[in-house]
Amino acid sequence: MADARYDVVGIGNAIVDVLAHADDAFLAEVSLAKGTMSLIDAERADQVYAAMGPGTEVSGGSCANTMAGLAALGARTAYIGKVRDDEFGDVFAHDIRGIGVAFDTPAATNGAPTARCLILVTPDAQRTMATYLGACVELGPNDVEPDLIAASGIVYLEGYLWDPPGAKDALRKAVAIAHQYGRQVALTLSDPFCVERHRAEFRALVSNDVDILFANEQEIMALYQVSSVEEALERLSGRCSVVAVTRSERGSVVLADGNTFAVPAEPVERVVDTTGAGDLYAAGFLYGLVREMDLPTCARIGSIAAADVISRFGARSEVDLAALVKARLG
Amino acid sequence: MADARYDVVGIGNAIVDVLAHADDAFLAEVSLAKGTMSLIDAERADQVYAAMGPGTEVSGGSCANTMAGLAALGARTAYIGKVRDDEFGDVFAHDIRGIGVAFDTPAATNGAPTARCLILVTPDAQRTMATYLGACVELGPNDVEPDLIAASGIVYLEGYLWDPPGAKDALRKAVAIAHQYGRQVALTLSDPFCVERHRAEFRALVSNDVDILFANEQEIMALYQVSSVEEALERLSGRCSVVAVTRSERGSVVLADGNTFAVPAEPVERVVDTTGAGDLYAAGFLYGLVREMDLPTCARIGSIAAADVISRFGARSEVDLAALVKARLG
Repeated sequence: MADARYDVVGIGNAIVDVLAHADDAFLAEVSLAKGTMSLIDAERADQVYAAMGPGTEVSGGSCANTMAGLAALGARTAYIGKVRDDEFGDVFAHDIRGIGVAFDTPAATNGAPTARCLILVTPDAQRTMATYLGACVELGPNDVEPDLIAASGIVYLEGYLWDPPGAKDALRKAVAIAHQYGRQVALTLSDPFCVERHRAEFRALVSNDVDILFANEQEIMALYQVSSVEEALERLSGRCSVVAVTRSERGSVVLADGNTFAVPAEPVERVVDTTGAGDLYAAGFLYGLVREMDLPTCARIGSIAAADVISRFGARSEVDLAALVKARLG
Repeated sequence: MADARYDVVGIGNAIVDVLAHADDAFLAEVSLAKGTMSLIDAERADQVYAAMGPGTEVSGGSCANTMAGLAALGARTAYIGKVRDDEFGDVFAHDIRGIGVAFDTPAATNGAPTARCLILVTPDAQRTMATYLGACVELGPNDVEPDLIAASGIVYLEGYLWDPPGAKDALRKAVAIAHQYGRQVALTLSDPFCVERHRAEFRALVSNDVDILFANEQEIMALYQVSSVEEALERLSGRCSVVAVTRSERGSVVLADGNTFAVPAEPVERVVDTTGAGDLYAAGFLYGLVREMDLPTCARIGSIAAADVISRFGARSEVDLAALVKARLG
């Protein structure tokens, strides 16, 4: 949108990922459900961390990964999220700014440390996440600058943000300002268990406030407690203007204006780590939208960005994503 | 050695690496000499970090990387090095213990933060390092437990440890105890500029105290200010019992009992990042020594471990190194 200073502003939990390899026996030992995201407290975070093997620390956070991907593709992006003024907080701020995302949310100066997500990657490339929200619980309405929301074409929210109790007021404020200025609201449902925790609020939000919805099959079925994606899409018909449902190796399905179409996944030589697949799909899709491309192309760019991130360890791309997309689109 | 509790105890600068991709223009912009290690102070560390792109944090430190490699191969190892009681210090301690290295050096409770090494990896896979020593300057003789040195078959020292002024007394103490208990002393020269900084001390050490010496071509030539490896090896004849000189893609040359032999490098499909090549060569070589293998096999295992680490990002292996070596040796 030509009148917007930013193409997309994202609001999410600001998290540093701690990635390590693990096997199924280890997941059982620390009682984590494979493929999902569990919320853990500080004590359990210490326990799981002590038990897991050597790690790699990389900036993460679902929405922040999406903003980083968008910035790498060439979009103008900003991010709102809460870190503590500690070493992991410095790492998070450095990395998101380093890729070109505007990030000015003041760091908390006391209370819990910067959030971390312990990510265990099994030999089948699945990732199992245990998140300690830390300083994310300090995010509040004061962190949402009205000018920033008003100046951004799309406000992108992650479902995980409903977990820290104080963040909801921040989200409501952001949604209200977005509507006031005629901006679009995008939401990702984040995780099936996250949908279970906040189903009523997510349904109301999707019905009343969301223009662009991202979800995977499990999440969208959990939202309406139905057993097929088709049923879920029926329930969504006439609500959001665009719904994009990711289906792992089967690509994605997009619903818009009552029509549904499928886009295949991009070929991947070897899936190394699925961390960030949904985040990067959303980045690619939103990039297409802000560049006013047709929806199949938006979904295609999402698939290209997702295919890249799952072919490496971690949730952020290391390649020149813009060049990759350009080469693939031909 | 059957009477030793540990096969190798290492003493080194305890560092967390911050790896990022960069190009030659960036190295020029921040005035770093490609392929080398520069020492930087806190202020310059902040400047370079602010200028560089998004990073990946991984435990590092040359000697610690070697101990991690040795542990991964199956050797019994311990490590002495100084971190601060901060988040990066926790990461360092977690990672080295997580791979099975005994690490009990008390963290500093005040003063500078845990050391970090900003590693810029250029498209040619070369790494350029800028190290802020931080808490490493706090390492002192009290951190060297006599029992630990006495109980370890080999004491392995990194040349970088001569940079923090206080560490020298710790090293002298370790060397004296090792001699007293008939243990072997191993040294890596670490970096040509490091050799320039401490040439006289390194020469005396090599002449009087070192049994096993690791160096690359530039380092060994810098030690004796000669222009060929052959000349340097001549100067070393009759001093150390084993000298292993790494030569990048040309493998390594080993001098022992007045005889010299060359071992080729292992084939690498694609060199991604040379960080840790020398550290892992030393790990493989020492593993062979503690298992009482012949010297060509020691060098071969060094080459295998080095080839693995340069085929991935970072200075620590992510694969089952023991299985890899077993498969390659056949």
